[in-house]
Amino acid sequence: MRVEIWSDIACPWCYVGKARFEKALGGFPHRDDVEVVHRSFELDPGRAKDDIQPVLTMLTKKYGMSQAQAEAGEDNLGAQAAAEGLPYRTRGRDHGGTFDMHRLLHFARARGRQVELLDLLYKANFAEERSVFGDDERLLELATAAGLDTDAARAVLADPDAYAAEVREDQREAAELGARGVPFFVLDRKYGVSGAQPAEVFTQALTQAWGDRPPLKPIDGGSGAADNQDGGEVCGPDGCAVPQS
Amino acid sequence: MRVEIWSDIACPWCYVGKARFEKALGGFPHRDDVEVVHRSFELDPGRAKDDIQPVLTMLTKKYGMSQAQAEAGEDNLGAQAAAEGLPYRTRGRDHGGTFDMHRLLHFARARGRQVELLDLLYKANFAEERSVFGDDERLLELATAAGLDTDAARAVLADPDAYAAEVREDQREAAELGARGVPFFVLDRKYGVSGAQPAEVFTQALTQAWGDRPPLKPIDGGSGAADNQDGGEVCGPDGCAVPQS
Repeated sequence: MRVEIWSDIACPWCYVGKARFEKALGGFPHRDDVEVVHRSFELDPGRAKDDIQPVLTMLTKKYGMSQAQAEAGEDNLGAQAAAEGLPYRTRGRDHGGTFDMHRLLHFARARGRQVELLDLLYKANFAEERSVFGDDERLLELATAAGLDTDAARAVLADPDAYAAEVREDQREAAELGARGVPFFVLDRKYGVSGAQPAEVFTQALTQAWGDRPPLKPIDGGSGAADNQDGGEVCGPDGCAVPQS
Repeated sequence: MRVEIWSDIACPWCYVGKARFEKALGGFPHRDDVEVVHRSFELDPGRAKDDIQPVLTMLTKKYGMSQAQAEAGEDNLGAQAAAEGLPYRTRGRDHGGTFDMHRLLHFARARGRQVELLDLLYKANFAEERSVFGDDERLLELATAAGLDTDAARAVLADPDAYAAEVREDQREAAELGARGVPFFVLDRKYGVSGAQPAEVFTQALTQAWGDRPPLKPIDGGSGAADNQDGGEVCGPDGCAVPQS
């Protein structure tokens, strides 16, 4: 079974939701048969790389919150994160564009290091004092810590086209699948879970999707049986088919 | 969409079928949205690592073919391969166990190099004079050529447990999905194609599976709407949800 998770590094509910999902997955009996893929979703897609501001300022300017509302929201998120055992700085974080981080995450996926890098990006953004925005050297340190080759990661960052199509494709798919925000979880492209739901909901989703895996429908080009040898030669325990032609 | 292909390196129809599938995929309009995963299927699972013999001898001894039948089968396979533009030595190849190759292929998958290694293994086995069986140094050369770290690949080969569970799990799944031989193609865990079918059958399967992708069913723990914010907080273009609690 495959679970795809759309998220953004700048999305606190994604950070919390990932932990809740992983709690459910950890208790799921078929967890070893579940593959998790992380997909890109920029909350602020047009944002220039050097357009960085404090989160609280962004919340008041962009969403018209009062300073008190913005701080209360952050305090609430801090409490939700703490309940999942996640560190969260409620004051002093920055907000910025995440396109390059998503490009790096796609590169990391191609190298089998995606979740390692995502976890480090989340931790750096939500829990550490040094900003992850506008600092390529910081991203390279995190990429290296995730097990990626530093020079290869540097080349990805330096080339704005590298993995850019993959990021945009993820976002196009999210829209197609009906995601209006993140985190957004898709199980076997059949079930969708929106938001940082309680772990119990993820357990329910995993169980339901697992139980509902359909039997395969054979496609055999009209020969009428998927496992015969009319045009579909196989090798099996008894040797390889020799076509009668 | 995801296509999983069960195959064995020692399986000529897998080698041919992969090329036919790739011909179909190359002409499929949504090819960039298709992820291909290669899965393990040993034709000869109990075979000891040092139990190597010429293919033609194996065909006569194990399957009771006459020498002429075995040679005719290989000639036919050579012709089928040639029709796909694939080199194929019809005489003088070896047969042996492939468990270690499958373990390496799982390691390569974790590093984003699976198809590169599989192509090199096929080419080495079917087209080159030097045997791939019983020769760890040869496997390491191929792993290195596929872009894997040589020492890491050596460590995988040296540890018989490394990725062994993944190989067995693939084989268990193949049985569960009804595969009686390989190659065996599964599209979105919904459609199955058995054997080295003509490219047209793969085109039909890709088209049918693509058109039949179901709309997502929301799972929301009973709140009745997948995109509301009752227990499933999201961040979206308009900011992050602040729970009213």
